[in-house]
Amino acid sequence: MRLSTPNIQLNAQGKLHHFLTLEGLKQHHLLEILDVAKSFVDEATGTIKKVDDLHGKTIMNLFFEASTRTLTTFEIAEKRLSADVVNLNIETSSTKKGETLLDTLWNLEAMLADMFVIRHGESGAAHFFAQHVAPHIHVLNAGDGRHSHPTQAMLDMYTIRKHKGDIFDLKVAIIGDILHSRVVRSQIQALSILEAREIRIIGPKTLLPADTAALGVHVYDNMEEGLDGVDVIIMVRLQNERMQSALLPSEKEFFNLYGLNEARLAYAKPDAIVMHPGPINRGVEIDSAVADGPQSVILEQVTYGIAVRMAIMSILVKNAKELAAAQQAQNESFDMENAQ
Amino acid sequence: MRLSTPNIQLNAQGKLHHFLTLEGLKQHHLLEILDVAKSFVDEATGTIKKVDDLHGKTIMNLFFEASTRTLTTFEIAEKRLSADVVNLNIETSSTKKGETLLDTLWNLEAMLADMFVIRHGESGAAHFFAQHVAPHIHVLNAGDGRHSHPTQAMLDMYTIRKHKGDIFDLKVAIIGDILHSRVVRSQIQALSILEAREIRIIGPKTLLPADTAALGVHVYDNMEEGLDGVDVIIMVRLQNERMQSALLPSEKEFFNLYGLNEARLAYAKPDAIVMHPGPINRGVEIDSAVADGPQSVILEQVTYGIAVRMAIMSILVKNAKELAAAQQAQNESFDMENAQ
Amino acid sequence: MRLSTPNIQLNAQGKLHHFLTLEGLKQHHLLEILDVAKSFVDEATGTIKKVDDLHGKTIMNLFFEASTRTLTTFEIAEKRLSADVVNLNIETSSTKKGETLLDTLWNLEAMLADMFVIRHGESGAAHFFAQHVAPHIHVLNAGDGRHSHPTQAMLDMYTIRKHKGDIFDLKVAIIGDILHSRVVRSQIQALSILEAREIRIIGPKTLLPADTAALGVHVYDNMEEGLDGVDVIIMVRLQNERMQSALLPSEKEFFNLYGLNEARLAYAKPDAIVMHPGPINRGVEIDSAVADGPQSVILEQVTYGIAVRMAIMSILVKNAKELAAAQQAQNESFDMENAQ
Repeated sequence: MRLSTPNIQLNAQGKLHHFLTLEGLKQHHLLEILDVAKSFVDEATGTIKKVDDLHGKTIMNLFFEASTRTLTTFEIAEKRLSADVVNLNIETSSTKKGETLLDTLWNLEAMLADMFVIRHGESGAAHFFAQHVAPHIHVLNAGDGRHSHPTQAMLDMYTIRKHKGDIFDLKVAIIGDILHSRVVRSQIQALSILEAREIRIIGPKTLLPADTAALGVHVYDNMEEGLDGVDVIIMVRLQNERMQSALLPSEKEFFNLYGLNEARLAYAKPDAIVMHPGPINRGVEIDSAVADGPQSVILEQVTYGIAVRMAIMSILVKNAKELAAAQQAQNESFDMENAQ
Repeated sequence: MRLSTPNIQLNAQGKLHHFLTLEGLKQHHLLEILDVAKSFVDEATGTIKKVDDLHGKTIMNLFFEASTRTLTTFEIAEKRLSADVVNLNIETSSTKKGETLLDTLWNLEAMLADMFVIRHGESGAAHFFAQHVAPHIHVLNAGDGRHSHPTQAMLDMYTIRKHKGDIFDLKVAIIGDILHSRVVRSQIQALSILEAREIRIIGPKTLLPADTAALGVHVYDNMEEGLDGVDVIIMVRLQNERMQSALLPSEKEFFNLYGLNEARLAYAKPDAIVMHPGPINRGVEIDSAVADGPQSVILEQVTYGIAVRMAIMSILVKNAKELAAAQQAQNESFDMENAQ
Repeated sequence: MRLSTPNIQLNAQGKLHHFLTLEGLKQHHLLEILDVAKSFVDEATGTIKKVDDLHGKTIMNLFFEASTRTLTTFEIAEKRLSADVVNLNIETSSTKKGETLLDTLWNLEAMLADMFVIRHGESGAAHFFAQHVAPHIHVLNAGDGRHSHPTQAMLDMYTIRKHKGDIFDLKVAIIGDILHSRVVRSQIQALSILEAREIRIIGPKTLLPADTAALGVHVYDNMEEGLDGVDVIIMVRLQNERMQSALLPSEKEFFNLYGLNEARLAYAKPDAIVMHPGPINRGVEIDSAVADGPQSVILEQVTYGIAVRMAIMSILVKNAKELAAAQQAQNESFDMENAQ
């Protein structure tokens, strides 16, 4: 049995203290998130419960990179946990006055933040914060550079499990700009940890990573072959900026080669589900008939994203409480031994 | 008895599900809003109660057209109902990333919005949203193009009723740019539904609508005649942009002809009240002596605006609950019949 | 005994109704703030309690001058008091539509604000608001021009008292741009009211005020002499704009003459504490070894800032309640006398 390398996001009990990346996590970490998320979904109404798990806690959303969609789902998740929520407009903050990023961090910490949700254009930004915050503070990665977007991957896993049950039985295809996508990196990690039967990536060679062998994925540059018999199709959003570089032909050509339309969808299993992190580019990476069709679960992903983010935040706080209780018990037992 | 045309804002029980326009509503719809609003006002202190009616509900304020004043009163109303409130900065949202308006809507819906409050520069925007949201979601119109601003009209009705009692006994004069004002359209509809004894509009011919006969209003282009014996005076805010077009003479000339000063106010009944939706242009459409004088109820309008908006939101949620209960009862009775 | 001049921020019972400046306040006013702030600090955990003191109250943060740091600490304090919080984006508000500042104020008042927190580039702005709001509304000064920043001074007093006990025994040195700092003005007032044994100001002559005698402070232009034997060192943030004027030499030269480094810190008492309102300019007014060293309490100041702001807001609301109760009792006693 190989011990996991020390992981900054785990506490002394091996439980999640931060949520920065899926790398190095065990199946039980992911399954707990999925289970707790499930407990927040009110199956009868399809809505998500309002609970008191984070009443009195202050969460600061630090979005150095604008994203209304991700910020809003975090904000809603936080309010449904009854936390106090502060959105920081980083553009107008002290970082402009010449304060270093660490000084800003320490000041926000001193403002009694219990949790930071960080989105940043640089890979490793959330790790940097986690390395420098006080021990009682939790850091969540809401997307860092090209590195990781773990909450997005976990909501994808929730959606797959909801529709398909256990993931180890499934063939999953991920299509599009694999190379530049932090979401895909996290999705592949999640699917690997949950032991998906087969992970395929499909895309033009210019948009595929070099180290596909190390990733444990099967590579296709042809849609029909890659989709053949899969249970789950995950489309990747095509970034417009790629289009303007030499990496890609025109939008139309991309759609002709890698766009998901009904004809191609037919190569997958008849009950395959279609996913996309949004916002979708209709007619670029996906046809409207598919995006709005019966196999699409794209909007469900958004909803489950709230439950999954609630679950992660709730678990982090619970883990800290359990660790504190264990340390307290240990101290008392130590005191008693000394007293005897 | 003529049946009302099908109205998208009414549910199967004929009750308000959305609040888009006053057109097609019955007196009882408006009276219920005014009565519920009254129940939120704490008469002893002049303030408005904090209640739990919308605890656990998420309201999204979608302001495509900036308006700090309207947004703030909605936000305060929502927080006094204990709702979770999310203000969406539409400028930085996905609509910029090429997502269609409907995709944005569906995504916000999937984020578990229970209610959208929409302000938009295009007439019909709120209707468009209402046509496309999921059945359990409520849409409120906070002003669309030149079409409608129904919550503003309802707070005006509340203010009139508070000071003057039943509206069917009253003569009301509306003064200024009638042609371009969505507020006036809604005010005339509200006054008609509540059967005001007489509705007068006063303004330069270039700023009056063509179809005044259809509106059931009396038209004056002279202030002294138009104000003679009225109970209620409603001033309209003059938009600066009109001034720059050929539609209007200078600000000074407008004030000379249609500005409300103390001398003109004397033509109305001695206890007439003076209203204005704000923000006022002192010395353009209204003289400070009148705006700040004893007959002005302009600031009360703002306060009652919170109670009225709370009432509307609370009624929409209550109506949905009652409809669900009725449908549930019907299903059970149907099941019982089948079982026999 | 000299009677205090009438003070707009005190109510009929001589208690705080607004919090605009420390000028004219008595020791008991300041001590009450410090004591109530202490009651909000959870000593066991070092965090600050969430309480219900302002449940149902609406606080509007009106920041005409941007300051993420100050706005965020106020916002957190308000939410920990369970108030409803509205941040007003003054840039996009009606003041742009030609509405006067007073009309804006009255409208916000009519939106049922219970408290305004105001930051403004003009000296006297908070006083102006306090003179014009309705009697039941409280105004807090979050910094006005070069005049006053009383909540910052009170959190400094809290931090000093926490580490050093009673302030009347202490020698305090304030270093840097004394002339332009509203924080220093408030700090000197607070230290005077709390009868600090000695207040010293240290800085280049171009950055010292003319009326130092009236301020009751000792003036030094040499760090070693000024720091000799002091208990508390308060650094002032150096504004970059001063640097570009003729008032100051280069940053490097300033640091050479007035920067706080370990060698200079040694002139103070061995247990002296080092304070700074933040954000700090490392290597300009303070050396990192000192800012991050064992005598620095800079980050504690931020935390106590939340407790102190909570205390002030809580006291203002309590005072208003007590005054209303006293007036009620007086009216009843008057009625009884008349009835006999």
